[in-house]
Amino acid sequence: MGGLRLVSAGESHGFSLISVIDGIPAGLAVDPETINEQLSRLHSSYNLADETSIHLEDDEVAILSGVRSGETLGIPITLQTVLLHTYEKRVMGAWSTPRPGHADLAGAIKFGYRDLRYVDERAGARETAIRVAAGAIARRLLLHFNIRIFSHVITIGRESVTNLPNDYEEIRQFAEVSSIRCADSEAANRMILALEAARREGETLGGVFEVIAVGIPIGLGGYGQWDERLESLIAAALMSFPGIRGVEIGDGFRSVNQSSYDAHDPLYVKRSKDKKQPDIIYRSTNHAGGIENGISNGSPISIRCAIPPVPSPMKPLPSVNLQTLRPDQPPQTFGEICTVLQLGVVAEAMLAIVIADQFLRKFGGDSLDEVKDNYSSHLERMPFQILPHPPEDDTDR
Amino acid sequence: MGGLRLVSAGESHGFSLISVIDGIPAGLAVDPETINEQLSRLHSSYNLADETSIHLEDDEVAILSGVRSGETLGIPITLQTVLLHTYEKRVMGAWSTPRPGHADLAGAIKFGYRDLRYVDERAGARETAIRVAAGAIARRLLLHFNIRIFSHVITIGRESVTNLPNDYEEIRQFAEVSSIRCADSEAANRMILALEAARREGETLGGVFEVIAVGIPIGLGGYGQWDERLESLIAAALMSFPGIRGVEIGDGFRSVNQSSYDAHDPLYVKRSKDKKQPDIIYRSTNHAGGIENGISNGSPISIRCAIPPVPSPMKPLPSVNLQTLRPDQPPQTFGEICTVLQLGVVAEAMLAIVIADQFLRKFGGDSLDEVKDNYSSHLERMPFQILPHPPEDDTDR
Amino acid sequence: MGGLRLVSAGESHGFSLISVIDGIPAGLAVDPETINEQLSRLHSSYNLADETSIHLEDDEVAILSGVRSGETLGIPITLQTVLLHTYEKRVMGAWSTPRPGHADLAGAIKFGYRDLRYVDERAGARETAIRVAAGAIARRLLLHFNIRIFSHVITIGRESVTNLPNDYEEIRQFAEVSSIRCADSEAANRMILALEAARREGETLGGVFEVIAVGIPIGLGGYGQWDERLESLIAAALMSFPGIRGVEIGDGFRSVNQSSYDAHDPLYVKRSKDKKQPDIIYRSTNHAGGIENGISNGSPISIRCAIPPVPSPMKPLPSVNLQTLRPDQPPQTFGEICTVLQLGVVAEAMLAIVIADQFLRKFGGDSLDEVKDNYSSHLERMPFQILPHPPEDDTDR
Amino acid sequence: MGGLRLVSAGESHGFSLISVIDGIPAGLAVDPETINEQLSRLHSSYNLADETSIHLEDDEVAILSGVRSGETLGIPITLQTVLLHTYEKRVMGAWSTPRPGHADLAGAIKFGYRDLRYVDERAGARETAIRVAAGAIARRLLLHFNIRIFSHVITIGRESVTNLPNDYEEIRQFAEVSSIRCADSEAANRMILALEAARREGETLGGVFEVIAVGIPIGLGGYGQWDERLESLIAAALMSFPGIRGVEIGDGFRSVNQSSYDAHDPLYVKRSKDKKQPDIIYRSTNHAGGIENGISNGSPISIRCAIPPVPSPMKPLPSVNLQTLRPDQPPQTFGEICTVLQLGVVAEAMLAIVIADQFLRKFGGDSLDEVKDNYSSHLERMPFQILPHPPEDDTDR
Repeated sequence: MGGLRLVSAGESHGFSLISVIDGIPAGLAVDPETINEQLSRLHSSYNLADETSIHLEDDEVAILSGVRSGETLGIPITLQTVLLHTYEKRVMGAWSTPRPGHADLAGAIKFGYRDLRYVDERAGARETAIRVAAGAIARRLLLHFNIRIFSHVITIGRESVTNLPNDYEEIRQFAEVSSIRCADSEAANRMILALEAARREGETLGGVFEVIAVGIPIGLGGYGQWDERLESLIAAALMSFPGIRGVEIGDGFRSVNQSSYDAHDPLYVKRSKDKKQPDIIYRSTNHAGGIENGISNGSPISIRCAIPPVPSPMKPLPSVNLQTLRPDQPPQTFGEICTVLQLGVVAEAMLAIVIADQFLRKFGGDSLDEVKDNYSSHLERMPFQILPHPPEDDTDR
Repeated sequence: MGGLRLVSAGESHGFSLISVIDGIPAGLAVDPETINEQLSRLHSSYNLADETSIHLEDDEVAILSGVRSGETLGIPITLQTVLLHTYEKRVMGAWSTPRPGHADLAGAIKFGYRDLRYVDERAGARETAIRVAAGAIARRLLLHFNIRIFSHVITIGRESVTNLPNDYEEIRQFAEVSSIRCADSEAANRMILALEAARREGETLGGVFEVIAVGIPIGLGGYGQWDERLESLIAAALMSFPGIRGVEIGDGFRSVNQSSYDAHDPLYVKRSKDKKQPDIIYRSTNHAGGIENGISNGSPISIRCAIPPVPSPMKPLPSVNLQTLRPDQPPQTFGEICTVLQLGVVAEAMLAIVIADQFLRKFGGDSLDEVKDNYSSHLERMPFQILPHPPEDDTDR
Repeated sequence: MGGLRLVSAGESHGFSLISVIDGIPAGLAVDPETINEQLSRLHSSYNLADETSIHLEDDEVAILSGVRSGETLGIPITLQTVLLHTYEKRVMGAWSTPRPGHADLAGAIKFGYRDLRYVDERAGARETAIRVAAGAIARRLLLHFNIRIFSHVITIGRESVTNLPNDYEEIRQFAEVSSIRCADSEAANRMILALEAARREGETLGGVFEVIAVGIPIGLGGYGQWDERLESLIAAALMSFPGIRGVEIGDGFRSVNQSSYDAHDPLYVKRSKDKKQPDIIYRSTNHAGGIENGISNGSPISIRCAIPPVPSPMKPLPSVNLQTLRPDQPPQTFGEICTVLQLGVVAEAMLAIVIADQFLRKFGGDSLDEVKDNYSSHLERMPFQILPHPPEDDTDR
Repeated sequence: MGGLRLVSAGESHGFSLISVIDGIPAGLAVDPETINEQLSRLHSSYNLADETSIHLEDDEVAILSGVRSGETLGIPITLQTVLLHTYEKRVMGAWSTPRPGHADLAGAIKFGYRDLRYVDERAGARETAIRVAAGAIARRLLLHFNIRIFSHVITIGRESVTNLPNDYEEIRQFAEVSSIRCADSEAANRMILALEAARREGETLGGVFEVIAVGIPIGLGGYGQWDERLESLIAAALMSFPGIRGVEIGDGFRSVNQSSYDAHDPLYVKRSKDKKQPDIIYRSTNHAGGIENGISNGSPISIRCAIPPVPSPMKPLPSVNLQTLRPDQPPQTFGEICTVLQLGVVAEAMLAIVIADQFLRKFGGDSLDEVKDNYSSHLERMPFQILPHPPEDDTDR
């Protein structure tokens, strides 16, 4: 079909969350386990939530359509998680005092609600779980083309990483085994202390995560029309869930006071001595975060996202009861101290969907075999190899 | 029609730039002067370009369709700027060494070009001028609803504003009379010195601008579906032109290490003593930048964008000639030292288009009168007034 | 939001059918009964199917999201029908001989299936049931604006209506009580005889239905851009389910050999004697079927659709086994003799969705109250009344 | 990019018509002559218009963007025709009496115009010329894949073809040399007599044309989602210009009273004796018009469109002056007796755009070479050859 379509539905305390992902080619092996594995990554080993928290991690996904005998059919795939644990709470009391930092006030006016809870039911982060499920299918597709996506924590509160591995794969591995998805173990310890302190003080913490996609082919996205630029597509996807207030590609805001020589990525060449081997053009840096002026340049795509502290500290922010029009405390609805880890996983899913969408637009194909053939042709047409790092035995630079 | 559609076309050294903007209601007064006024804002009084620069500011726009007797017809509006001054240069020599930081390498591979100049012809910033022209029409529409949009410079290189007025209107006025669109005159002087130094040293400078929209109604955007969120729509629009590598809404990255009490905006109330006057709910801060969880909250929308130094310093970055596969210097094609001012104006245009699009989706209408009627009904339905600042004689807080 | 979005998913013998309808304003009363009532209309009182038929009519819909306390929330609504009666049959045998007239051959090649049954699982008519469910919600919205939609049978096989009431409401009532949804009872008898004969002979029958929407405001659709024309939007929607091979608006193909005086609808005027009453412009005919050159003209929208005989007669059409590459009989999978009645009901649903989408685009609004206010403003701005029929006491014509 | 985007702009008596076509891959040879050749086909050798007619045929197109050195760049292509001959007439008088059969009344109310001429400026057929220009580029692309599109006249008024060649290529050739684009020369003579009579009597004539696309690959379109069906996409495109009131695919309305054996297309096989030659599956008929249940089946796509008589006979239809609210004659604005020939050419262009769009979605690719590679892979994956006609030396049937 050339491109993906994703629709989600469902409320935090509704019967279930649903997503429909359309455009995945036929013949892709998909099973609930792969999807549940991604959902389980929403659950860090370090417990950030108290008992009142909405446990994203309890979900198990069912595949309602689009898959037979463990393979996709090329038609819409429906994923569902049934929310029995929260559904029972749906009759809980209404509220009429908006929580600052949430959509409560504006949403109630937009839709004409009296009960502000209705805003939270859809605007809240609960919904993102079913997008993580859909993203798991996009990841599965990308894996056939050696595209891998992961995230790691850069900052929590005032604590940031100071000592990251140079290698993306090492970052991935370290983050994946870290209880708070941080690849710098020393910083991780500081972050945990900060989280403990915040819990004691009834405070919440913001932070920054980075999401990275490696194995990206050259030429995803476009600059022909303003709404085709890969930066735009990615920024829109990563801004599409609660709590994200900033997105930067590559060095982003950190590059604004750099020299131009430190903000961009020079190109080098290594001629092959063996005629059968391709010549190599490579870079040693990735300040651009894998995207130059609308299109992917073959280096890993790296994006950082900023998250303010969760707007639900123990002592709520001042607000106004919309019924009485008197000062009032909004409800304390949310038990998370910090959502940086979980939103990193959500961001992975959304990045996977954007990249899979662009991949399918560029390479076409209705079945996995057809996409593979087209991708192989693409690689064969390449006049030289492009590496995002120096070749192993680089001597020509 | 409910919503806008914008398409642009044309190359930097092509015959002309074209944009088609579709969905503007009928009956809106539009004239070339209003549009040219916006184009002229691309030209700062402080001359940042040397002689080789592409002068965005020389353009005069022609309205090719959609307007009769000075009013829009509700049908597609076509804008054109003829590029005689650059068109003559179109036969200039081809180049085959990609400029790092531009789309040259990836674009040539994507489209199979031998001449890398073709990439720059469309991926370059020149095209944004015609979007500024289209944005001028969106601004014109928004002005009927008291929505105003402006930008100002926050950072150039290592110099940043330290002393901004509290009032958005003052910032606008100060920036508009500043030769480098900076509302802090002391910082402006430092920035100019930095620009002079960069010119002497053959360097380029990055920076940060802020774009602000005031007078926004409550409820633009949405959280019903992931691709309706106002943050996403704005981030996509502001990432859609060359040089932008970061976008933050409100406090963005600056909020991540704040207390939750300093990162969100409490609500206060002022009851009216006069029964005929509405009660007022208000905020004293705008950390959220006017958007809470997908929808506008009635406060000014404020966005900051990060721009790395222009990737064309006098001594070009190392690169590789794709024909000879030998190290080579890319062409020095671009005369700008710093594009922060100009991209701020482009960002204003794109923000205007996003807001006009969302405004028309929410309020509907095929003629300006119809939109106005619908907007009036909306205001009348409001149960109280919502102010983005304390009421004049605030005593109840 | 201004506009609807509809996505459906599910297979004929899958676990369930799902549709997500997004953009319905908040505050609309919706209940499963209203939806099931529409689903039950897929079941004619005259039994056209034999035992092997897929019984569309057994479904009961569940509302999985978007509705609370019986009212829409303005967020995505998910509808589900669980297919227990067919789900059990999903393990039935594969087939490898394509049925001419179905997508079997082309679908298998497109998606690389070996088992042709997979094509039928999604390309078949079963899926349309869940769109009828979504359409029930659109109808419910339109009813608030006095827009009503119905269908009736024009032709089955060689038998056609000859004596239809002049009044649309009478046609609706007669069709609704007819066992085969035909408003001409004498023709209905002939059609039933034809159906009985076809059953005896193992044949199937095609036909024509008409779908009509009354109460349409002026100005839905557009001619500004080619993809906004109401004819296009309706034709696309009514061509979007199996078996439709022709669509005509108003007199359609029957108008091609008419005089221009008999093919278009003159305008007449009736001045009001009472100053408080509006003057009336009216038509006595509706050859145009309610749409002139891209936009609705205030007359009822009438569309006819052509359906060839179901491509599954008792003695199947000649085909080829794709595994053995030998002549073979395709499976006899379908028990319907004639689908004209049911497809009329499906067409009603799709027409409801298109009209609701265009209505919301024109009038905007996030809540039913807001849409109503905007619609009232529209009516008040009308300089005169436009009637699709002569006024009651017409004497001025 | 995977898919096309087409936007048109301009008014009948505006300065120029513009279209932007986006998504055409790079490396396609395009020149103004090829485009003008298609525009000239809007001009039949048989002169159907009197002097007051808007001469579509005078246009010469300029390529304003997207093409360099005679080849597409993969970026938006802008086409322009300057309308000097009509532009001078733009100051002609306003009118206030709507023409029945046009959008005048509804358009004026929709957009709040007092001058009904503004409706005609955009809703009229004049705009379609620039879509024919855009279609010429799509045709050029399709020609690289041996896809050819043509149209011929079936009916004018009461005269229809009775003796068409069996072979599509013969129909094309006969139609192309016919002065009224009719492949049955005897019927053509009757049609010309009818046109002469209509001219004498001040009448206008409707009719039917057929548009045919040969060389279509299997699997364009889709049935996965309702808005992907090829029937829908084509019907929408062919309903998108003034005067079309009916669309049928293949036998369409003519099939409703057929036996199911005469309404569908059986499949036959011819095994290859030479192992190197592929086995052949073929059809001898094409009742389905090349599309079965949402996707192309490899047979030629054939569509017929119904056009009522032009709603501008010499003696205009009764109407009402909207200013005086008195009965009045609308202006006689249009000199065409019959538009069937010209609309056939417009339909070819729109069909070309739909097919090119779907082709690019299925096969992907940013350059012509890349699309070709992907298409070749597709053909190589085919397990057998599928022919839309019996093989030359068919003996196995």
